[in-house]
Amino acid sequence: MTVSPQPAISRFPVPALADMPDDVRARLLAIQEKSGFIPNVFLVLAHRPDEFRAFFAYHDALMDKPGNLSKAEREMIVVATSSANQCQYCVIAHGAILRIRAKNPLIADQVAVNYRKADITPRQKAMLAFAMKVCTDSAAIGDADFAALREHGFTDEDAWDIAGITALFGLSNRMANFTSMRPNDEFYLMGRVPKPAKAG
Amino acid sequence: MTVSPQPAISRFPVPALADMPDDVRARLLAIQEKSGFIPNVFLVLAHRPDEFRAFFAYHDALMDKPGNLSKAEREMIVVATSSANQCQYCVIAHGAILRIRAKNPLIADQVAVNYRKADITPRQKAMLAFAMKVCTDSAAIGDADFAALREHGFTDEDAWDIAGITALFGLSNRMANFTSMRPNDEFYLMGRVPKPAKAG
Amino acid sequence: MTVSPQPAISRFPVPALADMPDDVRARLLAIQEKSGFIPNVFLVLAHRPDEFRAFFAYHDALMDKPGNLSKAEREMIVVATSSANQCQYCVIAHGAILRIRAKNPLIADQVAVNYRKADITPRQKAMLAFAMKVCTDSAAIGDADFAALREHGFTDEDAWDIAGITALFGLSNRMANFTSMRPNDEFYLMGRVPKPAKAG
Amino acid sequence: MTVSPQPAISRFPVPALADMPDDVRARLLAIQEKSGFIPNVFLVLAHRPDEFRAFFAYHDALMDKPGNLSKAEREMIVVATSSANQCQYCVIAHGAILRIRAKNPLIADQVAVNYRKADITPRQKAMLAFAMKVCTDSAAIGDADFAALREHGFTDEDAWDIAGITALFGLSNRMANFTSMRPNDEFYLMGRVPKPAKAG
Amino acid sequence: MTVSPQPAISRFPVPALADMPDDVRARLLAIQEKSGFIPNVFLVLAHRPDEFRAFFAYHDALMDKPGNLSKAEREMIVVATSSANQCQYCVIAHGAILRIRAKNPLIADQVAVNYRKADITPRQKAMLAFAMKVCTDSAAIGDADFAALREHGFTDEDAWDIAGITALFGLSNRMANFTSMRPNDEFYLMGRVPKPAKAG
Amino acid sequence: MTVSPQPAISRFPVPALADMPDDVRARLLAIQEKSGFIPNVFLVLAHRPDEFRAFFAYHDALMDKPGNLSKAEREMIVVATSSANQCQYCVIAHGAILRIRAKNPLIADQVAVNYRKADITPRQKAMLAFAMKVCTDSAAIGDADFAALREHGFTDEDAWDIAGITALFGLSNRMANFTSMRPNDEFYLMGRVPKPAKAG
Repeated sequence: MTVSPQPAISRFPVPALADMPDDVRARLLAIQEKSGFIPNVFLVLAHRPDEFRAFFAYHDALMDKPGNLSKAEREMIVVATSSANQCQYCVIAHGAILRIRAKNPLIADQVAVNYRKADITPRQKAMLAFAMKVCTDSAAIGDADFAALREHGFTDEDAWDIAGITALFGLSNRMANFTSMRPNDEFYLMGRVPKPAKAG
Repeated sequence: MTVSPQPAISRFPVPALADMPDDVRARLLAIQEKSGFIPNVFLVLAHRPDEFRAFFAYHDALMDKPGNLSKAEREMIVVATSSANQCQYCVIAHGAILRIRAKNPLIADQVAVNYRKADITPRQKAMLAFAMKVCTDSAAIGDADFAALREHGFTDEDAWDIAGITALFGLSNRMANFTSMRPNDEFYLMGRVPKPAKAG
Repeated sequence: MTVSPQPAISRFPVPALADMPDDVRARLLAIQEKSGFIPNVFLVLAHRPDEFRAFFAYHDALMDKPGNLSKAEREMIVVATSSANQCQYCVIAHGAILRIRAKNPLIADQVAVNYRKADITPRQKAMLAFAMKVCTDSAAIGDADFAALREHGFTDEDAWDIAGITALFGLSNRMANFTSMRPNDEFYLMGRVPKPAKAG
Repeated sequence: MTVSPQPAISRFPVPALADMPDDVRARLLAIQEKSGFIPNVFLVLAHRPDEFRAFFAYHDALMDKPGNLSKAEREMIVVATSSANQCQYCVIAHGAILRIRAKNPLIADQVAVNYRKADITPRQKAMLAFAMKVCTDSAAIGDADFAALREHGFTDEDAWDIAGITALFGLSNRMANFTSMRPNDEFYLMGRVPKPAKAG
Repeated sequence: MTVSPQPAISRFPVPALADMPDDVRARLLAIQEKSGFIPNVFLVLAHRPDEFRAFFAYHDALMDKPGNLSKAEREMIVVATSSANQCQYCVIAHGAILRIRAKNPLIADQVAVNYRKADITPRQKAMLAFAMKVCTDSAAIGDADFAALREHGFTDEDAWDIAGITALFGLSNRMANFTSMRPNDEFYLMGRVPKPAKAG
Repeated sequence: MTVSPQPAISRFPVPALADMPDDVRARLLAIQEKSGFIPNVFLVLAHRPDEFRAFFAYHDALMDKPGNLSKAEREMIVVATSSANQCQYCVIAHGAILRIRAKNPLIADQVAVNYRKADITPRQKAMLAFAMKVCTDSAAIGDADFAALREHGFTDEDAWDIAGITALFGLSNRMANFTSMRPNDEFYLMGRVPKPAKAG
């Protein structure tokens, strides 16, 4: 089995760093500094700087805000949503982030295939059941769905967080599928191998 | 049949104008100035200013940008997508905008029920067929779908516009369904009655 | 956007009034007298007089009979069913009738997009939930569905009315979709603008 | 395995022959004279004489009219439609009629399970493919579907016959499912055993 | 209606008895001895002896083992599963076996079309509801489904039997559909006509 | 996030090695010898030795036989099928085997999420498209599907291999979902990290 040496990361042109607006390039360089590489979603969406800025503003508003959902739980929602939408980029990239946030090398694959059987709490399963209804049948959401969340201690603001993350990544999944966005090779192994303890 | 005098426009608290951040309030006052009323989506989303800003930045980036899709065509995509997602707010509010943009009092209801039978061109039907695939089965989009668009003269940048609008309103539909966002009464009649010619 | 001056109302030949059997023509003239125009369903189905007679006999047996369902409620069932079947003619024509029967300019669009969020009573929502099960999954109807109706005061005869209307308009929707039956322009605005009170 | 001695044939009251309107009773007696028993659909629908009359008028207009579709072909449409709608009464009763009309003891079970593998002609498979689209996705019917029929020699009037039969039995299936209409025991064996040739 | 004189029983070559491995031929001769004919599934699968042996070993392990499910109940599961998968061979062949095992000429057609309305016990309906979930949505099976079985007296081992039969015939249905396996004509009438009592 | 120290690998009792029949235990010890651990599917299915033997005989007949499909291609079919059926055990365990067989650390996650975008050949995508039709809509398989395979050089015997593997793992997926079979922790990392070249 051979893979072409440099597979395209998008159906669309990907701008060179030098050709990007300053603020877009700055975000890419910052993430590269932090992660060691630039996740392809930044490069692919940089083709349209205004949409890039809006998407990441929305992302930060939901993923970096304070709230009752842990960072790992937010990534669980992303992975489950992206799997329901069969989005290769997001399942693989956010699977990596989920493993790191949860400090659990098994959880992302479990949630991607069938969250009902994942090593997560009943509360987290209720969270994902709500997310899946937003993802696939939002017109039918009603009082009973909010009540089911409250039974697990979720507030209505938490419900908004869950719905918002699901809705935003539904957008992201459609754009990634549409552009044939390719996940970076780096994501596949991230968070799977525990880091060795530092020597004293 | 009686309707409660002031039905809620959201499951969530709606901030008073005085309590909104200045930029959010400014946007609402501007739209009120222009339209004569504040569409409820602005009030409902103002509950979360950061998400509000990101959503409307994304909206403007796609709906106000130059491009080959007419304003009416962009609204057709919104109406067809919102109908597929059974979003009451967006079908009714953007149906009104579509009637006005297209100067056609019939088109919104036609597109909402079955775009294949609407009074639109074959090119517009191809545009909506692509949008519906992004909406309901984006993982299966492939070369043949882009080729079908090109046969009708759409460029790949037009395809991005179609996909982007579909994806953004998929987000909007899920948030509107989740919050039980209520369409303003004003929308139902807008664009249905031709304005009388001005007297000389 | 231009619309062809006289769009076809059917894929099939539409008989001239003069060429119709007397009883069929009489029904059309009577409705014209009453409504001011002939709804296209009468013209399109007149292509087959025997089926025309049977269809309207069935229609009258369900829609004009006495019973616990109000006229407006029967039209709600028609609109919800026709929306589920994506029937442009019936959603638009019966949407008009629903607005008139309910004396409510908003209700038809609400029921067409998502009856769960319409300005209707819990009893009416239960009625439409039953209708939707007849429409999309009749093989699974069982005792629990009848019990749910009874909780809202519906008798078994009311259930027959609901099921019968749903089933008949399922037939009508399929024929309208198949013939590409076009709604009359008149329907779009009917019932949307309150009539001015008569001067004293 | 025991079966209750006289299982109900309907959830609803079934009128005694003596209590039926004369024309309804006359039809039942005529069919009893001809068939040796009264198919339960006549008894169950007689609960509502006006709907009974309309249903059978519609039935006769489509099933007894002259046309290019043979009697057996019309019953194939009924069986395929009723199987798609999981209607026990209609699959079993019209399966019997199909066997008799086609003089083929195997065909009904084949069509009920998967018409694509039945001992029927390619023309008949095209007919049933069209019927299945009317049954399950009528909003998507377009020129290509009519063209596919024409390739097999079907006229547009034949298409109306196919669509009409599919739509009418869609109604019938929903009413039979809703009423829990029970097929007569007689139907199961009809047309399965060839009649012995009469002695000279 | 004409049927080709000797319709193929498979898309694939069917080996002659003389060319089969001894153990495969022995099984075919034994069944022929017992039933009076060789069911086509044996002939079609004999094209691949190793898979033949594994399939029938699996079959015997589930269908011939002792357990709380009666032989007739096991065949109900096969018929319901095969109908859900639209497998002509299995619905018709196992419908025959079900009639014989249950000594009931009506039951197979009832279960094939809609088990919810069949002349079976509530316990058997619960059994088939569980089987249908294994058949169509196994990823969602959870504690509640096992609890529903226990309410009807089924043990967890019974649940395994139900699931195993459903899963094995899901395999069989796919292979029969894939090979266009044709049911033997003999099956259609088997078990429909009660055998005359033997003379004293 | 904490995981219970020894999560169950099955809803059902798992026999001790000492309590298994000799042939079953021998197979487990052989796989343990080769792989360094016993995959849980062997332990879970050993609860029923006769079904165990039949399942693995079927498995070997399809997965170990000579043929035109490479070992990696067979595992691609397993992973795609198991993902369509949301089977956690099989996606994770056979994902590991696919990585090893294909000597490609990325391929399994790609195929699991969306095979259309995986780093595989057009021939392999055609193979998986056929497998997915066997998996989800086998009743509609017809000549055109075989023709599509032949265009890529697949013989009809290859088609049988594809269908057989898909059907067998459809069975396996349902049993794994039903038993809540847990993947061994070892699988998650297998084949992801290239082995270091041996020193000279």
